[in-house]
Amino acid sequence: MKCAVIVGMGFGGTRTARILAGQGFDVVLVDRNNYHLFQPLLYQVATAGLEQESIAYPVRAMARQWRGTRFHLAEVTGFDFAAREVVTDSGRIPYDYLVVGAGSVTNFFGNAAVERHAFDLKELTDAETLRNHILTAFERAVYEPDAAKRRALMTFVIVGGGPTGVEFAGALIELVRFVLAKDYPELSVQAARVVLVEATDRLLAAMPQELRSYTLERLRSMGVEVLLNARVVDADPERVAFDDGSIIPAHTLFWSAGVKAAPLAALLQVQQRPGGRIAVEPDLTLAGRPEVYVIGDMAYLEQDGAPLPMVAPVAMQMGLYAGRAILARERGTTLPPFRYRDKGSMATIGRSSAVASAYGMSFSGYSAWLVWLLLHLYYLIGFRNRIVVMLNWIWYYWFHERQVRLITERERGGE
Amino acid sequence: MKCAVIVGMGFGGTRTARILAGQGFDVVLVDRNNYHLFQPLLYQVATAGLEQESIAYPVRAMARQWRGTRFHLAEVTGFDFAAREVVTDSGRIPYDYLVVGAGSVTNFFGNAAVERHAFDLKELTDAETLRNHILTAFERAVYEPDAAKRRALMTFVIVGGGPTGVEFAGALIELVRFVLAKDYPELSVQAARVVLVEATDRLLAAMPQELRSYTLERLRSMGVEVLLNARVVDADPERVAFDDGSIIPAHTLFWSAGVKAAPLAALLQVQQRPGGRIAVEPDLTLAGRPEVYVIGDMAYLEQDGAPLPMVAPVAMQMGLYAGRAILARERGTTLPPFRYRDKGSMATIGRSSAVASAYGMSFSGYSAWLVWLLLHLYYLIGFRNRIVVMLNWIWYYWFHERQVRLITERERGGE
Repeated sequence: MKCAVIVGMGFGGTRTARILAGQGFDVVLVDRNNYHLFQPLLYQVATAGLEQESIAYPVRAMARQWRGTRFHLAEVTGFDFAAREVVTDSGRIPYDYLVVGAGSVTNFFGNAAVERHAFDLKELTDAETLRNHILTAFERAVYEPDAAKRRALMTFVIVGGGPTGVEFAGALIELVRFVLAKDYPELSVQAARVVLVEATDRLLAAMPQELRSYTLERLRSMGVEVLLNARVVDADPERVAFDDGSIIPAHTLFWSAGVKAAPLAALLQVQQRPGGRIAVEPDLTLAGRPEVYVIGDMAYLEQDGAPLPMVAPVAMQMGLYAGRAILARERGTTLPPFRYRDKGSMATIGRSSAVASAYGMSFSGYSAWLVWLLLHLYYLIGFRNRIVVMLNWIWYYWFHERQVRLITERERGGE
Repeated sequence: MKCAVIVGMGFGGTRTARILAGQGFDVVLVDRNNYHLFQPLLYQVATAGLEQESIAYPVRAMARQWRGTRFHLAEVTGFDFAAREVVTDSGRIPYDYLVVGAGSVTNFFGNAAVERHAFDLKELTDAETLRNHILTAFERAVYEPDAAKRRALMTFVIVGGGPTGVEFAGALIELVRFVLAKDYPELSVQAARVVLVEATDRLLAAMPQELRSYTLERLRSMGVEVLLNARVVDADPERVAFDDGSIIPAHTLFWSAGVKAAPLAALLQVQQRPGGRIAVEPDLTLAGRPEVYVIGDMAYLEQDGAPLPMVAPVAMQMGLYAGRAILARERGTTLPPFRYRDKGSMATIGRSSAVASAYGMSFSGYSAWLVWLLLHLYYLIGFRNRIVVMLNWIWYYWFHERQVRLITERERGGE
């Protein structure tokens, strides 16, 4: 029986696994976490809207349903291409086919000060850490006698005007205005600031003009300060510095201005493209290694003259393709080269408000928001998770409440 | 306006707050966590049955509904009785009335080796840590070539035959036999051992004889090894040693053999009783300080010749009493001395199986289990929490599944 090893149980790897399951392979699923994480909803965990468990799903629960698959919890430490083995911190795993999709990490573009002080959202624990930090800042503000320091505690600078920055900014201002305003009657919560910083002149750059304008207006009307053509160049725990020399006293800096391939990419022993990505052949294999596929955010592939974006839909389609390509080769055939079909993109701005662009059409407002909800519920894995998430959304919609306002780990001292 | 400060938002303090709310006091709620924790269900978080967020409820959400109350997140570092101030790590809080109910911590009775290696369940993070440890042990067992070591990874020693030990043992053996057996087809999970150790000759000592027998039989039929008249005297990460010189190779030791008053009790500047408890007057005040109440696990009060037990119902009744006593004194009257009304006790053993003793009657099996479920849902705070918990219970009952099988923090190295 041939062995297919899939490294990374993100949006790509889980799709490959589903295709190869029950097809006569020994499929080994490798991840350093024992769960698949639904990253697009991390920002809702960070803003007290969802419990972290509701956006994670155990790999073993999936493996049970996928015949011929088994899970190996491990950190990959290398690839022995000659021996055809994946090297991990808990042993070597031989393979006939290898699919690598370990995703991406936040790119701070070498700014060490920002990297040290900024929060980001890639891992499940990041979301809980950020939620604890936001709520702790308000608790500290209550007993801060100095008005300027109090305002800095309630000031949140979000860098990056892409979907993550926009969605987090919207969710955060609503948390502050609708929920925390009731929790902290002793604070003038209206003094709280949510500042969204974008280096170019546009939010949601991939969206059509009318949706970009809608997003900008909507965020501003909700109370988010949007700074365009602005760059954050330095930070410490108390303030954020901009390229024009201006300073915003802020206790919280959130960074979503870029991603780069996960460090695992360096273990693939090929030259990395900008952002650490790995150039792949049109069939997603490594040059000269037709048994090794690289998928998702780690893969660098140009289409129509531009590299494919590092987003979940690309990873999902690549994951499906890699699985099907392996099946085809076992049958002695080959697939046509991979081609990404862009079905559109969307972002939610706030309660009853989202933007979506699909098949050349633009949607905004309530209808886009409803479609966003349904699509996210659809892609979330696990029926129970869907119910819990839906329950939380209904709660928020009806009662304007976010229930998970828990500080599960207390921050100590000055930071 | 008189100020009442309540330290500790457990079962006692929340009851006092509810009584004093809206009665013309400035009520300050102090806790080092920003949530009330429903401790009786911690063991279900540890055994992957519930998400941690569903058994915690923000104090500020309660304070919103209790007129005249406000929350102060702080660690209490002392009491200045002369100035009538509570000293905290974020400032001093003056009081006219003070109610202290900071609960209890695990009592390892001075056994340093056990304290270092044993897990316990008092805080929310304890439950997540223990769940991570249990699931990680199974993951490690998969790739452990040595059969003896593999078995030790799947061996769990639980010390203490009280309700916590019994409930945890039952929930753990069901997790292993029903859920993990399906998750780990590569392991012979039947080799897993859950060993419940009790120093006396009886489980659930407070229960009538017939319920004790039922519990013992039921646990044994479920596969729990119950060792009576046995004492754990030493432990390291790989094994547990008993007073008769025997050894059980076990990767996990859980300790629920005793509690003692929280360290905060030492700050009250009075001599402590065995278990660190604070002797109180019949009206729950400190001798010579009629404006200071001590309630719950921290309070030492004898009734009918025996000290009151350190359990939630005592704390709740004391909390209500302290609130009512303060109101009475403001009206110039006094209440009769505190008297605990024992409404009975209960423990769940497994799915469809519990024991309950109330008003001189004994119940066991399905009916007791149903009553247990309803009572715990009733006492859980927050409507959304109740729905999420009920959802998880229904899931488990119907599908024999526990969904929260997540390792949210990976253990590194040898332990």
